[in-house]
Amino acid sequence: MAIMDIGIIPLGTETPSVSKYIAGALKVLESEKNIKYELTAMGTIIEGDLPLLLSLAQKMHDSAFSAGARRVVTTIKIDDRRDKVTTIESKLEAVNRELEL
Amino acid sequence: MAIMDIGIIPLGTETPSVSKYIAGALKVLESEKNIKYELTAMGTIIEGDLPLLLSLAQKMHDSAFSAGARRVVTTIKIDDRRDKVTTIESKLEAVNRELEL
Amino acid sequence: MAIMDIGIIPLGTETPSVSKYIAGALKVLESEKNIKYELTAMGTIIEGDLPLLLSLAQKMHDSAFSAGARRVVTTIKIDDRRDKVTTIESKLEAVNRELEL
Amino acid sequence: MAIMDIGIIPLGTETPSVSKYIAGALKVLESEKNIKYELTAMGTIIEGDLPLLLSLAQKMHDSAFSAGARRVVTTIKIDDRRDKVTTIESKLEAVNRELEL
Repeated sequence: MAIMDIGIIPLGTETPSVSKYIAGALKVLESEKNIKYELTAMGTIIEGDLPLLLSLAQKMHDSAFSAGARRVVTTIKIDDRRDKVTTIESKLEAVNRELEL
Repeated sequence: MAIMDIGIIPLGTETPSVSKYIAGALKVLESEKNIKYELTAMGTIIEGDLPLLLSLAQKMHDSAFSAGARRVVTTIKIDDRRDKVTTIESKLEAVNRELEL
Repeated sequence: MAIMDIGIIPLGTETPSVSKYIAGALKVLESEKNIKYELTAMGTIIEGDLPLLLSLAQKMHDSAFSAGARRVVTTIKIDDRRDKVTTIESKLEAVNRELEL
Repeated sequence: MAIMDIGIIPLGTETPSVSKYIAGALKVLESEKNIKYELTAMGTIIEGDLPLLLSLAQKMHDSAFSAGARRVVTTIKIDDRRDKVTTIESKLEAVNRELEL
């Protein structure tokens, strides 16, 4: 299991408001069973198997073209740890434990 | 007001666990008055004036060296809109409104 | 055709020097026919079809685990324009033309 | 000395072509004495002292607003090593040496 942070940025849209495109990309995730995800103010964080995450990244990226964009910049950060299981929740807990020390 | 997503990645640490460094970077923010921030599984999202955000970015980055890191990779994404006020909250609301359409 | 910038960051390695891992990720690209790529000081820029680029991203990311990393953070930026053909070369030329104006 | 990779992305421009904005951001760097920089197809890589790099990041980001953008997303990656001197050139050499092994 890996965790991916993905941001979809359509360029050359009529206005600087792009929430329509972000919502379209999120809809790609709604029917997915083997992931957890959450929207943040700066992107979408998704937890799941890496090949699935990358396949969803492509679908989210493509969705912005389907919604009318002619150019899309997509930023992705993957955090993948294979010596122990990490999740969105366990990562937050680890930092919060340190903050309490 | 701008919104910044920042991730601090120390390299060459003894173990792959780096939550100690993330917690140290968050402590930089605790005494700041003119920002809002939230920890995510992939970084920290901070809302405030851009010069202040960049000054905090440097302090968070430096904190990882103070905590013992010899090399730090820091990733920053700034979203800055000057035709209207946007906040962490207003950005999430805009996407959620689109999802309900 | 899209252009991807990818950076592979292994965590918890013994020393802060990680060029061994970067070289291993580059070797993934050597036998690929349908791409162009170049190493920069901050990542690798690859031009090709998007599904191929994402498949190579996974292989490059995985190569760091094969080389011994237990945790890998990979950052990816994709620039994809579908209203006209863009390449690594054409993008640089476009900026240089503007600089000469 | 640190190395920064910075990409300036204006949103809501009339066309998907944004090289005018990239060229404007590069002009910020032309008169700077204490840096080295190079344009890539995906951003600009700058070598210099970290406080100077962050100050230039803000100026490059602001230049896109001066050029007419109403919203700008700027991505920054900083690689900062303090146990030895690294430069754009030394990083490339280290990887190339590994490739030849």
